[in-house]
Amino acid sequence: MDTKYEDFVKEAKILADIAHAQALLSWDQETYMPPKGAAQRATSLGTLAGLHHEKLINASFVQLVRSLQEANLVGDQAVNVQEIARVQQRALKIPTALVVKLNETQSLAHEAWVKAREDAAYSHFAPWLENVLDLQKEIADRVGYEGSIYNAFLDEYEPHTRAEDVAPVLNALKDRLVPLVERIVATGKKPASGILDQEFAIAAQEEFGRRVMADMGFDLAAGRLDIAVHPFCSGLARDDVRLTTRYRADKMEESLFGIIHETGHGLYEQGLPSAATGLPVCSSISLGIHESQSRLWENMVGRSRSFWTYYLPILKEYFPQQLEGIDLDAFYAAVNQVESSFIRVDADEVTYNLHILLRFELEQALVEGQVAIADLPELWNTSMQEYLGLRPKNDAQGVLQDVHWSFGLIGYFPTYSLGNLYAAQFFQQAHKEMPDIENDIAAGQLTGLKNWLKEKVHQRGSRVNAGELVREVTGQELSADYFMDYLEGKFSQLYGI
Amino acid sequence: MDTKYEDFVKEAKILADIAHAQALLSWDQETYMPPKGAAQRATSLGTLAGLHHEKLINASFVQLVRSLQEANLVGDQAVNVQEIARVQQRALKIPTALVVKLNETQSLAHEAWVKAREDAAYSHFAPWLENVLDLQKEIADRVGYEGSIYNAFLDEYEPHTRAEDVAPVLNALKDRLVPLVERIVATGKKPASGILDQEFAIAAQEEFGRRVMADMGFDLAAGRLDIAVHPFCSGLARDDVRLTTRYRADKMEESLFGIIHETGHGLYEQGLPSAATGLPVCSSISLGIHESQSRLWENMVGRSRSFWTYYLPILKEYFPQQLEGIDLDAFYAAVNQVESSFIRVDADEVTYNLHILLRFELEQALVEGQVAIADLPELWNTSMQEYLGLRPKNDAQGVLQDVHWSFGLIGYFPTYSLGNLYAAQFFQQAHKEMPDIENDIAAGQLTGLKNWLKEKVHQRGSRVNAGELVREVTGQELSADYFMDYLEGKFSQLYGI
Repeated sequence: MDTKYEDFVKEAKILADIAHAQALLSWDQETYMPPKGAAQRATSLGTLAGLHHEKLINASFVQLVRSLQEANLVGDQAVNVQEIARVQQRALKIPTALVVKLNETQSLAHEAWVKAREDAAYSHFAPWLENVLDLQKEIADRVGYEGSIYNAFLDEYEPHTRAEDVAPVLNALKDRLVPLVERIVATGKKPASGILDQEFAIAAQEEFGRRVMADMGFDLAAGRLDIAVHPFCSGLARDDVRLTTRYRADKMEESLFGIIHETGHGLYEQGLPSAATGLPVCSSISLGIHESQSRLWENMVGRSRSFWTYYLPILKEYFPQQLEGIDLDAFYAAVNQVESSFIRVDADEVTYNLHILLRFELEQALVEGQVAIADLPELWNTSMQEYLGLRPKNDAQGVLQDVHWSFGLIGYFPTYSLGNLYAAQFFQQAHKEMPDIENDIAAGQLTGLKNWLKEKVHQRGSRVNAGELVREVTGQELSADYFMDYLEGKFSQLYGI
Repeated sequence: MDTKYEDFVKEAKILADIAHAQALLSWDQETYMPPKGAAQRATSLGTLAGLHHEKLINASFVQLVRSLQEANLVGDQAVNVQEIARVQQRALKIPTALVVKLNETQSLAHEAWVKAREDAAYSHFAPWLENVLDLQKEIADRVGYEGSIYNAFLDEYEPHTRAEDVAPVLNALKDRLVPLVERIVATGKKPASGILDQEFAIAAQEEFGRRVMADMGFDLAAGRLDIAVHPFCSGLARDDVRLTTRYRADKMEESLFGIIHETGHGLYEQGLPSAATGLPVCSSISLGIHESQSRLWENMVGRSRSFWTYYLPILKEYFPQQLEGIDLDAFYAAVNQVESSFIRVDADEVTYNLHILLRFELEQALVEGQVAIADLPELWNTSMQEYLGLRPKNDAQGVLQDVHWSFGLIGYFPTYSLGNLYAAQFFQQAHKEMPDIENDIAAGQLTGLKNWLKEKVHQRGSRVNAGELVREVTGQELSADYFMDYLEGKFSQLYGI
C-alpha cells in the first residue's frame, strides 16, 4: 500500500507542478507580459491545460486512484485520494469535445458580452448566455448532483456546500439587511467622504500599503506585490504568493483596501500546511473560505475604528497636507460611507451582499428553469428596486454589469457573501478567545490575529470542508447573525440609528 | 502527406508551447521570483523538462517524423522535420537514467565549483570535473560524431560546425591578435577611463539605456527590459522577448553596454520569421550567430566614434556634472580601454578573444584526452602568460573563474569568439552595401542597420546553418581577417600604433 500511495503522490505532484506553471503564465499575463505576447501565451496555456488533463485521466493513474479508494486510507492520505478522485471522475465524465465546445462558446460569449455591455443591449448577449447555460447544464447532468441542479454549479467553487443549506442562511441575511440599508439611507447622512476625494501621490500610497502588508505579517521572501488592472492573489506555491493591486492618485482607498484584501488572501496561502505541498490536503478549502480571509482583514479590521486609531497618524505622515486637521471619527466615517448604487464592485460593505443575493436568486432560478433568459433584465431591475431602492436606467447598469456569466461562472457569486458570513463568525470567535484583540489592533499589533487565523483556518488545509471548519472553529453552524450583528453594531453607531 | 505534415506541426507546436512555459519559469526565477519560491520552481521546471522529453520521444511521433524524413520534403518543411529529427534522435540515444545522473552530477559539481572557487582550491573541484566529463563523453559516444569527439560538444551550441573547420580560423585570429595586444600594452597608454570611475545615478542610466534601446528599434510592445544579477536575453516567443540588465552607480558602462548587447540579441529574436512561430525554421541558427548580433551592436556600433558623436551630447544631458568638459575623443577612448586582465567577463573587446582561445584549446585537448585534468591549472596559467603576459596568482583568478565546465557546458566557449568573427564579417558587408552607414550612426539613425540585419540574418531563421549564412551574406568563407582588420584599424588609431 505504501508504494501505491507513493506512486499516487508522485503523479499528484506532477499535476501540481503543471498547475504551478499555469499559474505563473497567468500571473505574468496580468502583470508583465508585453501586449503582443498574448497569442503565444494563449496557446501555451491551452497546451498546459491539455497536458494536465492527459495526466489526470491517464488510465493507470485512474486505476491507481481507484485501488487507493478501496484501501481504507485515513487522515491526510484519505483526503488527498478523495479529492483527486473527485476531480478525476469529473474530468472523466466530460468528453474532450464538450470541453473544447465550452471553451469556444464561452470565449465567443465573452466577446458578445463585452460588446453588449458597451451598447447596453442585453438582447445581443441573451442568445450567447443561452448557449453557455445549455453547455454548463449538460456538464452538470454528466457530472451528476443531488437535489437542485444548482448544486452541481455551487460545488465547483464551494465544494460540499448545497443550495438548500445556503439559501436559508442567505435569506436570513436578507431579512435583516434590507431594513438596515433602508434605515441608513433614510438618515440622509453623507459622511465626510470628501476626505478621500483628493489626490494622493501613488509612490506614497504604495509605501503605506507595503507597510500595512508587512505589519499584517505577509512574508515578502515568499511572495510579491505587483500591479494589475484587475487585482488578484495567486498562490503559485505556498512559498511563492503573488499579490497585485492598482493605484490611482484620485482613488487612494482602492489601493489601500485592495492591498489589505489581497494580503488577507495571501496570508491564507502562506499559512497553508507545508507537510505535503502541492497535494489537495495542503490547499485552500473553497472560494468562500478564501474570501473570508480577505474580507475579514479588509473590512472588519481595515475599516475599523481600532485600525485607524493606530494607522491614521501614520497615514498623515505620508499625506500631511491632505489629512491636515482630519480626526479619527471623520476618517473612520469616510472609509465607511454607505450608499445604494448600481454596480456591485463599487458597493460598500453593507449594500454589497444585496447585490450578491440578487444574483444568487436569479442564477439559481435560471438553471432550475424557473425563469426565462429573456426575462432576466426585468427581474434584475425589480430586485434592485426592492433591495436597494434603485432602478437601473439601462442593462449596462444592470444585468450586463458582471463578467461572470459570460464565462460560465454560475454558482460563483454566493461565495462572496458566504465569505463575509464566515469572516464575521470567525472574527466574533477571535474576540471571544482574544479579548484584547481590539486593543492590539489599535496598537498596530496585527500578528496575534494573523497567528490565530493561521492556526484555526490556514493550517487546517483541506482536512475539513467549509461547513465543518465553521463548526470546528466557532462551535456553531453557519449563521448570518454574526455578520448582521457586526454590521448593525458598527453602522448604528456610525449613522446614529 | 499534407495531413501527416499537419500532424507533425501540431506536435512540434506542443513542444514549443512547453518550451515557452519553461522559458517563462526560468526568466521569472532570475527576475521576480521571491527567494523561497526556489524549491517549487525547481521541481516544476524538472516536470516540464520531463513532459517535453516524453512528447519528443513519443513512439508515434518518432514514427511520424521518420516517415516524413522519407517523404522528400523541401524548403521550410524539410528544415523543420530535419531539426526535430536531430533532437529526437539525440534524445532517443540518451537513456533517461543517464540524463538523471548527469543532472545530479552537474548540480553537485556546480556546488563543488562554487566552494572550490571561494577557496581557490582546484583540487576540490577536479574530481567533479572528471565525473562531469566522463558523463558528457558517454553522451557524445552514444549520440555519435565524425572526426574529433569535440565535434559532438560543439554541435550542441553551434550546429553543423566542426572543430577542424573552426580551429584554423581561430588560430589565424590568435596569430594576429597576440601581437596586437603586445603592441597596445607596450604603449603604456591608459586612456581617460577615470571618466567612467564616477557615480552615475541609476534612474538616469536606465532612462538613457531605454532611449538607446528604442532608437535601435526594439519593440517594447513585444518585449521588456528588467533587472537580473546575471543579465541575459530570453526569447519566450518572437513577440515576447525579455531582456535584462543590472545597474551599479559606480559602473555605468556595465548597464550601458549591457543593454546595447542584450538589445542586439533581442532584435534577432524579434526579427525572426513569423511564418511558423515555434517551429525550428523560425528559430535562431546558433549561439555564435546570436552572439554576432549582440557583439556587433555592443562593440562595433556601441563603442564606435560614430555612435558617441550622436550620443555623447545626449548622455551629457543626463549627466551634465560628471561629463562636463569631456570631449568626444576622451569619451571614445574611455569606453575602449584595453588592458590585459585575468577575468574573462571583465575583458575588453581586444583581449576578450584570447581568453576564449585559451579555453577552446584546453577543453578540446581535455575531451580528446591529450591533457589530464590534474594538469589544467598549470596549462591555463602558462597560456595566460603566453597570450596575455599575465600569470594568475591563484586558481580562482585562473582555471576556476568560469561556471561553464561545472555545468557540463563544454564546446560553448568558442561560440563567443565565433560571434565576434561573424559580427565583423557581417558589419564589413553592411558597410559595402550601405556606404553611408557611419554617417547614419553618427546622426543617431540606427534603423538602417537594424533593417539590414533583419533582412540578411534574422529573417533567414534557421533555413541555413552558420557557415552557409556567412557565405550567403558576405560571399566569403568565415575568416578572422575581417575582425582583425576592424580591431587593428580601430585600436591603431586609438593607441597611436
